[in-house]
Amino acid sequence: MRVHETHLRVRYAETDQMGVVHHANYFIWMELGRVEYSKAAGFDYKVMETEDNVLIAVVETHCRYLYPARFDDEVIVKTWLETANPRMVGFAYQIRRAVGDRALATGRTRHIFCGRDMKPLKLPRKYHACFGI
Amino acid sequence: MRVHETHLRVRYAETDQMGVVHHANYFIWMELGRVEYSKAAGFDYKVMETEDNVLIAVVETHCRYLYPARFDDEVIVKTWLETANPRMVGFAYQIRRAVGDRALATGRTRHIFCGRDMKPLKLPRKYHACFGI
Amino acid sequence: MRVHETHLRVRYAETDQMGVVHHANYFIWMELGRVEYSKAAGFDYKVMETEDNVLIAVVETHCRYLYPARFDDEVIVKTWLETANPRMVGFAYQIRRAVGDRALATGRTRHIFCGRDMKPLKLPRKYHACFGI
Amino acid sequence: MRVHETHLRVRYAETDQMGVVHHANYFIWMELGRVEYSKAAGFDYKVMETEDNVLIAVVETHCRYLYPARFDDEVIVKTWLETANPRMVGFAYQIRRAVGDRALATGRTRHIFCGRDMKPLKLPRKYHACFGI
Repeated sequence: MRVHETHLRVRYAETDQMGVVHHANYFIWMELGRVEYSKAAGFDYKVMETEDNVLIAVVETHCRYLYPARFDDEVIVKTWLETANPRMVGFAYQIRRAVGDRALATGRTRHIFCGRDMKPLKLPRKYHACFGI
Repeated sequence: MRVHETHLRVRYAETDQMGVVHHANYFIWMELGRVEYSKAAGFDYKVMETEDNVLIAVVETHCRYLYPARFDDEVIVKTWLETANPRMVGFAYQIRRAVGDRALATGRTRHIFCGRDMKPLKLPRKYHACFGI
Repeated sequence: MRVHETHLRVRYAETDQMGVVHHANYFIWMELGRVEYSKAAGFDYKVMETEDNVLIAVVETHCRYLYPARFDDEVIVKTWLETANPRMVGFAYQIRRAVGDRALATGRTRHIFCGRDMKPLKLPRKYHACFGI
Repeated sequence: MRVHETHLRVRYAETDQMGVVHHANYFIWMELGRVEYSKAAGFDYKVMETEDNVLIAVVETHCRYLYPARFDDEVIVKTWLETANPRMVGFAYQIRRAVGDRALATGRTRHIFCGRDMKPLKLPRKYHACFGI
């Protein structure tokens, strides 16, 4: 199992009045993680979307929040592929703070492939290897 | 079981280049839903936060996306309380498009009560009735 | 001069750790204001974008922040057209808190019409009246 | 004049249905720029906020958009100090795309120093040198 690590720094705009990162932002961080994971697997999301007109639509998201992330924290998103077939891929994530290697959150997302009309379709064969299909 | 309905209109800024609402925004809509649910139950989140220094921290979020929401859609968030005890509350949500009463997503969130230091604490007794505890 | 009033309630996710609304959100509120202004002027942004393939691209934004908006405040965005010709429109905004009719911010935005390729074009004649051209 | 360069990669969530970055995000990028500028000048925003209870509130923002940024673009934010006195600082920004060194936007922001109550105050003397006061 390949695990990709994405590094980011918490933005001021990502905090809320509780003084910590607003929970919706973790899904944006997971998205950064899977974009980088995919690139590292030889897969360019941007190219597939613009040249093949194949989009990856999110069908399910889940997150457990373990410890709050705060402004300016360096955060590491560990991303790996959990399941993949020509119709669907599933990613899992561990989000950690670099200082103290503190676990912040765990997450999972599932995705289907679809066209510009949002109708499901199969992942083109040339991309199968990227997802180990 | 009380169900609260929150109405909102999809903002242009909530869309992404797929031409539909970005999936992270559904959690912001659920937040609108539970703020309004709580208000309707006689509970003012803002007051509890500023006067009692009790915060409600998100510990788990989940969403299934059934059909894409688009710019300018009128959206209805149905919110209800699933579980509640002095340490934790859980909400569930149905997100529907007004036109055609189309189901867009379902979600769940769980929350703990905590102080400004993010340490867990018990919900003050005066708020118990709002959550049916 | 027609002035349109858009009402909104501050979302928790719009605050930052300073305890007030993050400044970037005011531009999203101005966007809500001009979408509603345009609708009231008989102009449907969504339709023009999907049927005529004419987009409105932002070319300049400006905001002065006078007083902080806070979570759950009811906010009124007053929007009016400042300038309009077949190549460009300019809007101005006053953002006020409903309680106490307190001025929160003033803003201006300028926009050009363009195609899906982001190349400038002239506003189709049928829409001229909406902008008083 | 010191100019600080901040590098970032455009996030999918930062795009809108026009297929380009939503204009409000440029202000979040400017914020990244001035946080990094300040750090490079020996000034830790986070520390000043938590230890000295001095906040930096935005009082004016301005942006001209020259060319659209797109998903996955590498973007460089050039940040420099335009004006500074014990009551106010002003930053200016050039936002460029790394590929082709294309100018994307220019911006300016002005800020006052204030306490937790959002009342204006003077920048503590120990921080003057960071801003060349």
